[in-house]
Amino acid sequence: MDIKGNLLYGQSGGPTSVINSSAYGVICEALKHKDRINEVFIAKYGIDGVLNDDLIKIDEVKDKENISLLKQTPGAAFGSTRHKLKEYIEDKETYDKILATFKKHDIRFFLYNGGNDSMDTIYKLSEYFKKSSYKCFFIGIPKTIDNDLVFTDHCPGFGSSSKYIANTISCIIKDASSYSKGRINIVEIMGRDTGWLTCSSILADPKPDLIFIPEIPFDMESFILKVEKIYKEKNMCYVAVSEGIRDKDGKFIADQGVKDAFGHAQLGGVASYLSSKLASLGYKTRGIELSLAQRSATFISSKRDVDEAIKAGSYGVKSLLNGKTDKMVCFKRKSDEPYKITYSLVDLQKVAGQVKYVPSSFMDKEDLVPNDNYINYALPLIEGEAKSTYINGVIKFSSFLK
Amino acid sequence: MDIKGNLLYGQSGGPTSVINSSAYGVICEALKHKDRINEVFIAKYGIDGVLNDDLIKIDEVKDKENISLLKQTPGAAFGSTRHKLKEYIEDKETYDKILATFKKHDIRFFLYNGGNDSMDTIYKLSEYFKKSSYKCFFIGIPKTIDNDLVFTDHCPGFGSSSKYIANTISCIIKDASSYSKGRINIVEIMGRDTGWLTCSSILADPKPDLIFIPEIPFDMESFILKVEKIYKEKNMCYVAVSEGIRDKDGKFIADQGVKDAFGHAQLGGVASYLSSKLASLGYKTRGIELSLAQRSATFISSKRDVDEAIKAGSYGVKSLLNGKTDKMVCFKRKSDEPYKITYSLVDLQKVAGQVKYVPSSFMDKEDLVPNDNYINYALPLIEGEAKSTYINGVIKFSSFLK
Repeated sequence: MDIKGNLLYGQSGGPTSVINSSAYGVICEALKHKDRINEVFIAKYGIDGVLNDDLIKIDEVKDKENISLLKQTPGAAFGSTRHKLKEYIEDKETYDKILATFKKHDIRFFLYNGGNDSMDTIYKLSEYFKKSSYKCFFIGIPKTIDNDLVFTDHCPGFGSSSKYIANTISCIIKDASSYSKGRINIVEIMGRDTGWLTCSSILADPKPDLIFIPEIPFDMESFILKVEKIYKEKNMCYVAVSEGIRDKDGKFIADQGVKDAFGHAQLGGVASYLSSKLASLGYKTRGIELSLAQRSATFISSKRDVDEAIKAGSYGVKSLLNGKTDKMVCFKRKSDEPYKITYSLVDLQKVAGQVKYVPSSFMDKEDLVPNDNYINYALPLIEGEAKSTYINGVIKFSSFLK
Repeated sequence: MDIKGNLLYGQSGGPTSVINSSAYGVICEALKHKDRINEVFIAKYGIDGVLNDDLIKIDEVKDKENISLLKQTPGAAFGSTRHKLKEYIEDKETYDKILATFKKHDIRFFLYNGGNDSMDTIYKLSEYFKKSSYKCFFIGIPKTIDNDLVFTDHCPGFGSSSKYIANTISCIIKDASSYSKGRINIVEIMGRDTGWLTCSSILADPKPDLIFIPEIPFDMESFILKVEKIYKEKNMCYVAVSEGIRDKDGKFIADQGVKDAFGHAQLGGVASYLSSKLASLGYKTRGIELSLAQRSATFISSKRDVDEAIKAGSYGVKSLLNGKTDKMVCFKRKSDEPYKITYSLVDLQKVAGQVKYVPSSFMDKEDLVPNDNYINYALPLIEGEAKSTYINGVIKFSSFLK
């Protein structure tokens, strides 16, 4: 007999423009299956809400507008966490508390929306639950602007960030080209380990002249020579650079020596560093860090990304109801043009802790900028403009946390 | 008898999201009056194009799409300049060259689109032309995101930048509030002398906790106390700050000692400076500079601003044809709700070199943040979302310069 019970959804890791679209997909799909799912719960601040029994119970009627606005709400509408579970033997108490919350609310279906580290969290939980006598199904929904999850063609969130980057860089270059003699403009884009997002600057029109990603060792001398050559020709120069570029020894160009809870180096300021370097050589420069807006500006979300994020959420719910567990939802690309993907599942174990880099086949061998293979890959993901509701000229958000 | 001849339009100073909408208004209106205006010329790079006889002649048929796209094109589509005219007695040659270009192309109507310094340019030219026997009419079209021109209720460009700021800060705050314990986020907004744009951060939803503008002397000690109090209560804190905030002695908080062609101090980095200051006290902070996107992101232009910029352009042309000269187009507000303005003219002489500051009546006496008077003033200016054309997911621009 099919298991019945309640469903719990949580958000984890750095937010994207469309993580709440996946929440929308989960909630709407779950509410359709009243024969199997009695109540829909959302954990506040991800796994921390589960630990502390701090859950929101969705009220289909009262929350109607709030649910609908999820599609245009940035951040993690239900709160996120960077809490990384230790191994069971190191921290039994945490696991036991989580199990207690599940039992208390009869949670039989669990969806966790996050990146790499979050898939590791679900995998650990699922392994622990298997050892207990409590039956529960676990599915991961991918989410990361970094696009660095393996096994999926791309990740929800990447398309909208790419669209923001392509459009913002187009506008910045057009603006900065207003004078006959311009500056050297260096735009810093998120991406600690991978250059997917920075590569999307190639989709801008006008395009940057130079693009630097972490996958290709950064050489200061050759950087300066390239910039000088372009500036001499054009009286201006536009550079897109990943925050995580590093030298041939793997040392971050803008290392500040600070680490986050996951043990990753906290970066930032590479644009400012490079522009100071060029300024010291006598150039007029400007460093521009796209910062948080690149993962939160829902007013320029990709319609395709929003739609896919919603479907990833609903596919996750359907998979749970079909008895699937220990899997992450993933996209398989069938064709670039016309763009066609299918939804499927991959073992959590294969995803957790893995990183997908920009393949060398996506980069021009000589100029080291993204080539047509990259453009064919990324272009469909930024297509379409999501329609939003505005109140008093400002995009309206849902508000579940207070 | 009404004078006939050709019309010349030029752009000057820092661009806005809608300066090209004014160009659109000028071109479309001028093309309607073939009985009076034979040809429409545009100066490349503002007054420099006039000096060097580097003009574009508009071709109504060939340029049709390019003209239409002006409404969503950021930057100065025809090139801008920071060239400030010296007094005639100091630089006769420049004035004589300008006159020669006007004579060569039979320019009888001149429109210059810019801020304060640009109004000074037209005023000087017009005074010089009066002394020559060459008859020509001069009108200024206002443009500045800074909103600091006197005599006009507001300036084209301010509404779109305000809309960008309100929406981007909404998204940034929503994103940064994803974790239960956040950082102190400091957002730096353009505004060297005036705080109009920074005040528009109050239109965001969620709103920043603290707002600092150049009109109110910045006190570091009280800043730190305020931030600490908010952080203690909320576990996060959002600050909006003008690039040009200064201390009680008028010294810029982020003075870098560099000056631009107009003799203004080149600023930048106040967010980074303040966040380093707070980090040194042990807080987790983030500095975000909105940079060029705040004056160029046409994908989030205010529809009202675009419409008004177009009308300011066409009103300028109609004024010239009515024999007006030595004036700047200005807006007079008739009512906040329903929002109603009329278009009129003001003497260039009264505008040139003047600065309009945020009045103290727009600021709360105690909290020093913009009050309802400011909101009633600014809110109508960000209303409506301009519709744009996208190609391959990226907003499309006109391209007149090459």
